[in-house]
Amino acid sequence: MGRAGRRSSAGPRRSKAAAEAILEAAEAVLAEVGYAGFTIEQVARRAGAGKPTIYRWWNGKPALLIEIYARQPLDLSDTDTGSLEGDLVAALARLLTFWRETPAGEAFTALLVEAQHDPAALEMLRAFLAERSFPFADLFDRAARRGELAADFDLAAGLDLVSGYVWARLLTRRLDNDAPSLSSAARQMARGCLRR
Amino acid sequence: MGRAGRRSSAGPRRSKAAAEAILEAAEAVLAEVGYAGFTIEQVARRAGAGKPTIYRWWNGKPALLIEIYARQPLDLSDTDTGSLEGDLVAALARLLTFWRETPAGEAFTALLVEAQHDPAALEMLRAFLAERSFPFADLFDRAARRGELAADFDLAAGLDLVSGYVWARLLTRRLDNDAPSLSSAARQMARGCLRR
Repeated sequence: MGRAGRRSSAGPRRSKAAAEAILEAAEAVLAEVGYAGFTIEQVARRAGAGKPTIYRWWNGKPALLIEIYARQPLDLSDTDTGSLEGDLVAALARLLTFWRETPAGEAFTALLVEAQHDPAALEMLRAFLAERSFPFADLFDRAARRGELAADFDLAAGLDLVSGYVWARLLTRRLDNDAPSLSSAARQMARGCLRR
Repeated sequence: MGRAGRRSSAGPRRSKAAAEAILEAAEAVLAEVGYAGFTIEQVARRAGAGKPTIYRWWNGKPALLIEIYARQPLDLSDTDTGSLEGDLVAALARLLTFWRETPAGEAFTALLVEAQHDPAALEMLRAFLAERSFPFADLFDRAARRGELAADFDLAAGLDLVSGYVWARLLTRRLDNDAPSLSSAARQMARGCLRR
């Protein structure tokens, strides 16, 4: 290994291929044993990497979980149905499927759990939620442009209700796309925001 | 100790005083170290009881957590303000205070966490939610009697939205009673249920 190689493995800069291998290993561990067995040790073993390398690049489990989440493809385009209610039905179904079918669901569950005993993880969870500005914000923007929203609509409350609803489904493992109950929930959420 | 005493300590029947001591020890452990340090071992040590006794009476952590939760006093009476929106504001504030100021908040957090890796805990969580028929069901009953609710109001969706909202606040440790954001959320929840 040449000088550059040595320097890169000792410095904060990542080797792209090694990082990718670690992320893939982390996804595999999550998928196979769930968050309870998800340790940096396990990930390192599976990736054939050293624990120090992982800690140098991610500084801990929460950061690794967030990167796993963020690299999964969540496509909420084509959810413009012409009304907030329709958009919510489409986007909720898309999000539940995303959590069910990619490592994102297990990664987010793990982050929620970590946040309950690790103050640093709680800070990262909050920053993550604020930064990503939860994808549903776009739906409310669209509704505002259509003139659907009540004058006193509060975006923060709207996002709290949507995210609470989907978190509760995640945590009780109801990620199936049961159209009738999604429709009822979306109808109530939308009506709560609309002009009367 | 007489015959009856021996039989009761060997059988499934609890000694009331010993059970009380164990529950109090469990509450103290939860309060001091949070759910991450909450183990039957810790509880037994603190109560001066044997682990087998605890397992005989509760069969595991989730059952113990549920009993801790259920024995805390949650009083939602006097939340009849004349409207669903007002009732929701009052009851949400009461519930957040309950979670913040009694061991119930930490116990419920612990139950949610356990349910993520223990299928038996998940079953108990679901049964607990169904059985207690979440105290907010009364609020919707009252609203129905007042004639406030839309004809297509769906109680399950209403309860999902309320519980999701409070769970999200619990899990992001926002149990402070911040009146403006509670009011906005309650307004949106209520409007979503009302006749138009």
